[in-house]
Amino acid sequence: MYDLIIIGSGPAGLSAAVYGRRAGLELLVIEEKPMSGGQVLNTYEVDNYLGLPGMNGFDMGMKFREHADMAGASFKTASVTEICDAPDAKTVRTADGTAYEARALILATGAEHKLLGAPGEEEYKGRGVSYCATCDGAFFRGKDVAVVGGGDVAVEDAIYLARMCNKVRLIHRRDSLRAAKGLQDKLTACENVEILWNKTVQDIHGAGALEGVTLLDTAGQASEELPVDGLFIAVGMHPNTEAFRNVVPCDASGYVIAGEDCATRTEGIFAAGDVRTKQVRQIITAVADGACAVASVERYLTAKR
Amino acid sequence: MYDLIIIGSGPAGLSAAVYGRRAGLELLVIEEKPMSGGQVLNTYEVDNYLGLPGMNGFDMGMKFREHADMAGASFKTASVTEICDAPDAKTVRTADGTAYEARALILATGAEHKLLGAPGEEEYKGRGVSYCATCDGAFFRGKDVAVVGGGDVAVEDAIYLARMCNKVRLIHRRDSLRAAKGLQDKLTACENVEILWNKTVQDIHGAGALEGVTLLDTAGQASEELPVDGLFIAVGMHPNTEAFRNVVPCDASGYVIAGEDCATRTEGIFAAGDVRTKQVRQIITAVADGACAVASVERYLTAKR
Repeated sequence: MYDLIIIGSGPAGLSAAVYGRRAGLELLVIEEKPMSGGQVLNTYEVDNYLGLPGMNGFDMGMKFREHADMAGASFKTASVTEICDAPDAKTVRTADGTAYEARALILATGAEHKLLGAPGEEEYKGRGVSYCATCDGAFFRGKDVAVVGGGDVAVEDAIYLARMCNKVRLIHRRDSLRAAKGLQDKLTACENVEILWNKTVQDIHGAGALEGVTLLDTAGQASEELPVDGLFIAVGMHPNTEAFRNVVPCDASGYVIAGEDCATRTEGIFAAGDVRTKQVRQIITAVADGACAVASVERYLTAKR
Repeated sequence: MYDLIIIGSGPAGLSAAVYGRRAGLELLVIEEKPMSGGQVLNTYEVDNYLGLPGMNGFDMGMKFREHADMAGASFKTASVTEICDAPDAKTVRTADGTAYEARALILATGAEHKLLGAPGEEEYKGRGVSYCATCDGAFFRGKDVAVVGGGDVAVEDAIYLARMCNKVRLIHRRDSLRAAKGLQDKLTACENVEILWNKTVQDIHGAGALEGVTLLDTAGQASEELPVDGLFIAVGMHPNTEAFRNVVPCDASGYVIAGEDCATRTEGIFAAGDVRTKQVRQIITAVADGACAVASVERYLTAKR
């Protein structure tokens, strides 16, 4: 019986492991993939994590894991299929049939950006294709970029990028946007933004770095070529909460409902990082969640004693 | 007229500077002291900021400042005496008589741990004397420590330290604790904790590192010697909000009332880091606030446009 099991080994899970070990908790981190770091691993460059400017995402993931190792955290690679809640013990079951028990759980399984599914998307990820304007916009100062999507995030991204890029195109597959009216007004007020209606991205290409996309007109079916230096894909996120939606209440999009203290509505189960309901999903906010979640775990364990 | 003025250059202010610059905002950081970093500068070792294990506090402060410089932030050393709120411009006045204007403000002036005022306290800070059990407890694994105070934080610190230290003494100047009854029960259940009632710390001493404290009995006035490896002082904090308590609502302890989104109750003014109402005051949570505050500033500026 562990004091704490942390599910997930991205920035939130690894930070929770460091804080948990420093608090003297016996803990286990269960990670799905054989390499810790989560989404960070696939990031070309991270430049907004204070103290580690211009760091390659893969190296950052390694650094984070090393830190957790130094703190004495134990890791197990396994896919979590189910969690069961009982007042005195939470059980975590994995695909290999093992059951692990702990007095408290931190869910730190993250969320994934939805893919467009266009040819070249995977190849140019981190070389022009990005899923986060706040993270990567500054790399495209003075350049031409496009945003794909029609919701609030896509429009916010386009407005954000308009401040630093030369030209911003918003590519949307329909003839109207889903985004809030107020945001749409701000968007149309940006002089360097153009909306390309009824267009989907058919192909993403370049020579080493991204050079352009082929757009398909959903009405007329004609193809056209759009040269871009950056392509920001904002077609939604998918929180990794399938294995525990029956145990912790989630919102309509599947995020675990939890505030800044990371407490879910199920006693003794906490949620940290991108997986919980929050406004700013950044590496640094996930890492902070790790600290807040452990503080809440400690308060919970002290009260249970 | 700046887009944003950030008051304070600790972890929250510097992180806000990085995020703000990356978002293309014209910003100024006004710092009181000629050196950025805030409380971090006076920390002997920081071991819980993910990715920078075992880092000297001074070096960390320098690294943080370098990062903000690389992002292109401007700094001004001045003491802020007053802020004035108007719908279209916030004015920041400094002791040298200058007035700066911005469309939005981030208050990141931090909080200070209250000092005991005992001889040796300053000298042994970072060499045995600490103001944060969560931060420094792990450095005293298996050792003998004492906590000074009688409130919730002092009792929580003693419980936290009991899990990793050999012996924990709680030194309190009265014959009863102010802390919540539930916490007191947990404390008395810890076998390795002893409460020293009616005692104040008269002197803090050692040879290079902390070795012990002299206690004065407030009832009988007799002195006694207590050998300790670590002394955790938990006698309260003081948020640096004097200059703007008339403009942004603060709680009874003087912290600016603001949630995870860092929005104060005054439009266009945001609060980040230790200065705002929050549960976990750590470097990493202050840095995360910098990111959240800038996200809120952007939303505010976009809506105002």
